[in-house]
Amino acid sequence: MSLIVQKYGGTSVGDAELIRNVARRVADTYRAGNDVVVVVSAMGKTTDDLIDLAGRVADREHPREMDMLLTAGERISGALCAMAIEDLGVPAMSLTGSQAGILTTAEHGQAEIVDIRGDRVRTGLTEGKVVIVAGFQGVSPDSKDVTTLGRGGSDATAVALAAALDADVCEIYTDVEGVYTADPRIVAGARKIDEISYEEMLEMSVAGAGVLMARSVEFGRRYGIPIHVRSSFTGDMGTWVKEATLEEAIIRGIAHDSSEAKVTVHGVPDKPGVAAALFEPLAAAGINVDMIVQNVSRDGITDISFTVPASSIETARDVAISVSTDVGAGGVDVDEDIAKVSIVGAGMKSESGIAARMFRILSEHRINIEMISTSPVRISCVVAGSDLHEAVNSLHDGFETEMAPAIEGAP
Amino acid sequence: MSLIVQKYGGTSVGDAELIRNVARRVADTYRAGNDVVVVVSAMGKTTDDLIDLAGRVADREHPREMDMLLTAGERISGALCAMAIEDLGVPAMSLTGSQAGILTTAEHGQAEIVDIRGDRVRTGLTEGKVVIVAGFQGVSPDSKDVTTLGRGGSDATAVALAAALDADVCEIYTDVEGVYTADPRIVAGARKIDEISYEEMLEMSVAGAGVLMARSVEFGRRYGIPIHVRSSFTGDMGTWVKEATLEEAIIRGIAHDSSEAKVTVHGVPDKPGVAAALFEPLAAAGINVDMIVQNVSRDGITDISFTVPASSIETARDVAISVSTDVGAGGVDVDEDIAKVSIVGAGMKSESGIAARMFRILSEHRINIEMISTSPVRISCVVAGSDLHEAVNSLHDGFETEMAPAIEGAP
Repeated sequence: MSLIVQKYGGTSVGDAELIRNVARRVADTYRAGNDVVVVVSAMGKTTDDLIDLAGRVADREHPREMDMLLTAGERISGALCAMAIEDLGVPAMSLTGSQAGILTTAEHGQAEIVDIRGDRVRTGLTEGKVVIVAGFQGVSPDSKDVTTLGRGGSDATAVALAAALDADVCEIYTDVEGVYTADPRIVAGARKIDEISYEEMLEMSVAGAGVLMARSVEFGRRYGIPIHVRSSFTGDMGTWVKEATLEEAIIRGIAHDSSEAKVTVHGVPDKPGVAAALFEPLAAAGINVDMIVQNVSRDGITDISFTVPASSIETARDVAISVSTDVGAGGVDVDEDIAKVSIVGAGMKSESGIAARMFRILSEHRINIEMISTSPVRISCVVAGSDLHEAVNSLHDGFETEMAPAIEGAP
Repeated sequence: MSLIVQKYGGTSVGDAELIRNVARRVADTYRAGNDVVVVVSAMGKTTDDLIDLAGRVADREHPREMDMLLTAGERISGALCAMAIEDLGVPAMSLTGSQAGILTTAEHGQAEIVDIRGDRVRTGLTEGKVVIVAGFQGVSPDSKDVTTLGRGGSDATAVALAAALDADVCEIYTDVEGVYTADPRIVAGARKIDEISYEEMLEMSVAGAGVLMARSVEFGRRYGIPIHVRSSFTGDMGTWVKEATLEEAIIRGIAHDSSEAKVTVHGVPDKPGVAAALFEPLAAAGINVDMIVQNVSRDGITDISFTVPASSIETARDVAISVSTDVGAGGVDVDEDIAKVSIVGAGMKSESGIAARMFRILSEHRINIEMISTSPVRISCVVAGSDLHEAVNSLHDGFETEMAPAIEGAP
């Protein structure tokens, strides 16, 4: 008998019929002799609808109350799932994040899980019940207030619960078949990846692969919980995220991210303290800087470029202009039409020339590289947004033979 | 400085604009120097929508999960009200029934309030906040599960909270101006009642006046909390429900109820134990019998008629037929087209001839009386459903002079 944590996203519980589907899958898993804990997101557009309502009753932001509001969403989908499962003759019980003992920091809207008590979850399992836990939410033991975990929070709930309960596997059900070698909406020949290491998945997530957020992968890695990303609409095997196996692919996949924008400060006097003068106020403004590139200095003058989420670009520009004036730089340019394309693969560590091949492929397609950054298992290039489609496709073609073949029988 | 509990019903928080209205009223009350606790129902049709969703995911009833589901409704309206109030610069905080310490029995869907801790409500008030409490819901200390209070539950939450906090007044905001001498949809000349005693209001509620449920009135009476029923759309005074003042009106108002049906068992042998044989199984089936009339026996044979909620009529008929066979009665008739009309007034106790006048007025309008029941401050007659309109109007006309005049300036 195994203990399985299953997480169903908003599209998987989007309406009554889909919830009945989820219930059948859960009941089958239970009847196969497993203990089952189910983590649910809010139904489809519920969260957006509630955010919209909040915008119509109040002009300012009220984080504590926004969390009280939004957490109603998973409470609703959780109760409905429990009903649908019980209707199939399988005992079930839904719990809020607070009831399940998901303890978090007190930062509303972006709380972090600090501990999971899980007493009521364990009691429910002991009583032979399927236990449904509302994802994305918890409670701060300090303020006693309800909190939400921010984007990807339901995945984090599922993996953290799996770790706390020492589950055998955490299954993430979603509306795609798994993790792909590239985004199938961009690359027609993209293939589902059968297995990927935590390290590679982390890099893929950070580089823009939206199917699994980095913090969930990090939880899985830290506690050694295998994560199985799979479709809630088919019974097919998806992608296993787990410890690296012996054989490593040189390139696991291509990720991309078009949600960032680039700021360049021109004509910066190349002297100590200039970078700090720029990035300290950005950090203080809560802006998440991704890539930073400083040109080689010429005549004591350099340029500094960095990327930030497009949603933060206004603030980032203001900070950059202010600092530019202070340090006597030449000026500030903003480019919102950029995209980042990355190749990820643990085998890169022991293989030389991968970066050179990447740059060659891009240049052969007349794609200009604006910025470059690397990690031991990833190389990222910033290109013009209009080049994104061709960049991803040409790299996928170019590294086709280095990517692991699809396992026989997998779709 | 007073402590005021305000309760807003579903129609008063039906959309974003209405919630902003509620927030303005609450902010005004707070800025006038009062401590304010707000109890909210779910927005308009939210509860119906959730019940509908439940019906689509499950065929059977799952009371625990239904309560988890429905309680999302007041959580949403509570959080939205808190945001709207804070937006006006008044500190506010919403609490679920559980967080507010509303402790109930464990009967899902029809729990009774057994205690109110209210620690977090008091703390919030001490911190200078308006505290919003989700109505209609609580938590069972035994099962630790979330419960709902059933129909009129938000009013019960408000009055019980007012009692627990020793509030100066409990204001029930609704979509009508107060309690009327008769239903204004039926009687054009119906007047708002300025003051009514707990005892009279209890009888009005039981007799069908839907504006306030009997158990809320009972809470107010037991703990001496004045209840002010008023409109959330105007600033006008509504109806005060409080201890009787010295001067009592003979007739306070006319109530009616067309939600019941009548069952008659004919040709019942008039011997001990027959009534018990009929009403014990009805009670065991959870059917709430209202009026019971047994005819004067003739030749050892009698008829027994009783009224039940129309929603229970199928079960009541089956029980009656079964008992009828067992005791050798002649047969069972069901009449679903009935209505009950009642006159209520504490002054009746010291005034004779009121019942006779009521019967006279009905007979003058050729309205047949099918059943009669009385209490010290109420006389109720069952008539044909088609006679209801004329019965209520003729009684309102006939007792016009006995009803308290409207206070000068009141609408």
